[in-house]
Amino acid sequence: MNHLIDILQLSTQEIDELVAKANDIIARPEAYAHKCDGKILATLFFEPSTRTRLSFESAMLSLGGKVLGFSSASSSSASKGESVSDTIRTVSCYSDIIAMRHPKEGAPVVASMHTAVPLINAGDGGHFHPTQTLADLLTIHHEKGTFDNLTIGLCGDLKYGRTVHSLIAAMTRYKNVKFVLISPEELRLPQFVIDDYLKGRELTILTGVLGDKDFHCMYANVAPFAKEFITVTPGNPRALDAKDLAKYLATFGKPVTPCETVADGVKLAVEHAGKGGVVLCYIKAAVAAL
Amino acid sequence: MNHLIDILQLSTQEIDELVAKANDIIARPEAYAHKCDGKILATLFFEPSTRTRLSFESAMLSLGGKVLGFSSASSSSASKGESVSDTIRTVSCYSDIIAMRHPKEGAPVVASMHTAVPLINAGDGGHFHPTQTLADLLTIHHEKGTFDNLTIGLCGDLKYGRTVHSLIAAMTRYKNVKFVLISPEELRLPQFVIDDYLKGRELTILTGVLGDKDFHCMYANVAPFAKEFITVTPGNPRALDAKDLAKYLATFGKPVTPCETVADGVKLAVEHAGKGGVVLCYIKAAVAAL
Amino acid sequence: MNHLIDILQLSTQEIDELVAKANDIIARPEAYAHKCDGKILATLFFEPSTRTRLSFESAMLSLGGKVLGFSSASSSSASKGESVSDTIRTVSCYSDIIAMRHPKEGAPVVASMHTAVPLINAGDGGHFHPTQTLADLLTIHHEKGTFDNLTIGLCGDLKYGRTVHSLIAAMTRYKNVKFVLISPEELRLPQFVIDDYLKGRELTILTGVLGDKDFHCMYANVAPFAKEFITVTPGNPRALDAKDLAKYLATFGKPVTPCETVADGVKLAVEHAGKGGVVLCYIKAAVAAL
Repeated sequence: MNHLIDILQLSTQEIDELVAKANDIIARPEAYAHKCDGKILATLFFEPSTRTRLSFESAMLSLGGKVLGFSSASSSSASKGESVSDTIRTVSCYSDIIAMRHPKEGAPVVASMHTAVPLINAGDGGHFHPTQTLADLLTIHHEKGTFDNLTIGLCGDLKYGRTVHSLIAAMTRYKNVKFVLISPEELRLPQFVIDDYLKGRELTILTGVLGDKDFHCMYANVAPFAKEFITVTPGNPRALDAKDLAKYLATFGKPVTPCETVADGVKLAVEHAGKGGVVLCYIKAAVAAL
Repeated sequence: MNHLIDILQLSTQEIDELVAKANDIIARPEAYAHKCDGKILATLFFEPSTRTRLSFESAMLSLGGKVLGFSSASSSSASKGESVSDTIRTVSCYSDIIAMRHPKEGAPVVASMHTAVPLINAGDGGHFHPTQTLADLLTIHHEKGTFDNLTIGLCGDLKYGRTVHSLIAAMTRYKNVKFVLISPEELRLPQFVIDDYLKGRELTILTGVLGDKDFHCMYANVAPFAKEFITVTPGNPRALDAKDLAKYLATFGKPVTPCETVADGVKLAVEHAGKGGVVLCYIKAAVAAL
Repeated sequence: MNHLIDILQLSTQEIDELVAKANDIIARPEAYAHKCDGKILATLFFEPSTRTRLSFESAMLSLGGKVLGFSSASSSSASKGESVSDTIRTVSCYSDIIAMRHPKEGAPVVASMHTAVPLINAGDGGHFHPTQTLADLLTIHHEKGTFDNLTIGLCGDLKYGRTVHSLIAAMTRYKNVKFVLISPEELRLPQFVIDDYLKGRELTILTGVLGDKDFHCMYANVAPFAKEFITVTPGNPRALDAKDLAKYLATFGKPVTPCETVADGVKLAVEHAGKGGVVLCYIKAAVAAL
């Protein structure tokens, strides 16, 4: 049985196959509309994550399958002290595959020991989020047609962003990949990620462009900033609110292309044709409602 | 793309068509059992409203479609500060139509700017609730066969009841419609509603029959009152608890006909053949659980 | 219309038919995959119970039907004071059958007076839980092939466990059934259950083996205890943590067989071939999450 806990469980060949499969689903959805007839997906979200949960449910429904589960610990028996392993063991009797989100790192590994069906990690604390990374990889492949010879710009909160860490881990397996890390000093990429994946690799660390002062300003204004960003479309670039970041991004010389997937945050790909690069900005959506 | 935010977006001709369509669905449900095969409805309820939400979900399931969404802000990512526009933008990638409920007036208008699929307002604060009004109109049409030449009695909380305001707005477009407004003084219809829709129209305002004292008494006893009301069936009228209201209603000389739809409150139609009228009582269900 | 509130509503002949039906569904699931096409189950859970709720939803989905509902009072309109009878009355217009869970004893009886479709009690406080009892009966029948001439051991919290009380009520209708009650003194079977069902019947009450001291110890260690228990498999018995209980269970001379159903607690059947008995241990899962 194959669980998916960490993106690194997948070989680059398996990722290539998944990307090809995804492109085929996008091109011929009707060929997959009944692939999961009679199958049940359980979405067990021990913390709320609307977009991630609905992305799983929508995918299963689109493949002809059915869905059950819960969307927060408070609406599940976790609120009366039922253990995760009890829940997983029972739910695996009711479903054909489980997608699980949990605030504690490592919970999916424990859960995978108790399930009778395959389990997908839909995010565990600041740890892993492999399907998000798959969505990022699909976006990159869609934009550039390859994973080799790219310069990946990562911009925003690089310290706590599990998706940033996972994407770095996944991309370092490809040929001649360089990274540009753009963050304020206090949110720079942790040293352990650099040690684990980026040793001896070409790396540009830019904390100056988003200094302490700039970041606090940007953080306070993250809502309008995000809004400006999101409304930008190719061929119709609008002025960006966060001037310092905009100035930097402008050096890429290409319009901003919104590419939304199932991110926890707002994610943008900036084409960087000159260097063959892609910039993904992770801006944690600590944005006031409306 | 057609959003449905406010009942007044629909012309009276469109309402006639919808009523005819609804009657056809009621008469021949099997002809519609697969109308929405392969389609997905997203129900995004930023505040709980079980009956409204389930009425949408039931409708979609009955038409062969599928459903995903959330039932309260606390079980959604709204609890971690995700903005409504972010949620809408993403969910519109996962669904073919969205029904949205939000405690803030105007939220659906903002949301409609960010969605790639049609959006239905399932209630925004004290503002609009167009599908509720459609249900009310269907009830009236079912009872009377027409929207013209009716006397509409509105009874209960006329101040905060958005469904009352919407129904008045919708009905004033028909010929020779009169209104009888029955409420305690402090919950009478706001002047702006009178100014907007009822200028120069025959209007009976009855606040005496439900004076301050009567209302407080009625409010305190709303649970048994509602219960009595609900258990009344045509041909088997039982004694009503709320004596003053009952006395007034009795003057209509006809049995009370329960007509439940998707209301937030308890709703009753009282046939009033003598005047060709229908009385709809909106009693906010601030009723203790069982 | 047949509601299912209490297991005793079913005759032993009806239970035999249900057990035969369940075994046929297990043997030939494909024959039942479209039995409920076009039907809707409403799961109305006024308190969270993930496993019970998902067991109902999974069952309906496996039979080809569809599901709607809510998983906790906080995500339903109960949080704004809507009464149970209002909710039931409306939801019964949207569904073909209702499964309802409520923290108050008797709520399903009240609800059954207001529904237009059959209602299944999925647990009401410390009162009834008939489908849990059906699952227990199915387990017993699966293990022993009969309900007659059995010695049933009930171990754990016998005071507050509604499933224990229901199972006793159900089993006393079969021939020559004996009971062994294993609990600490303070959690022994209530006298009214003994008076109602066990008068004049062979009964072994063991509170000594789980004395006050032992129980507190067991309670404090219930998490590892439960874990050990669960990982035990036939032919591969592992050491049990809770020594005193283990010692007692060992006297049955057979390995522990895990038999999980939809219990609120962790449930284990211990084969007791010598006496033709089955031991069901109800250990309230007050277990810390992971």
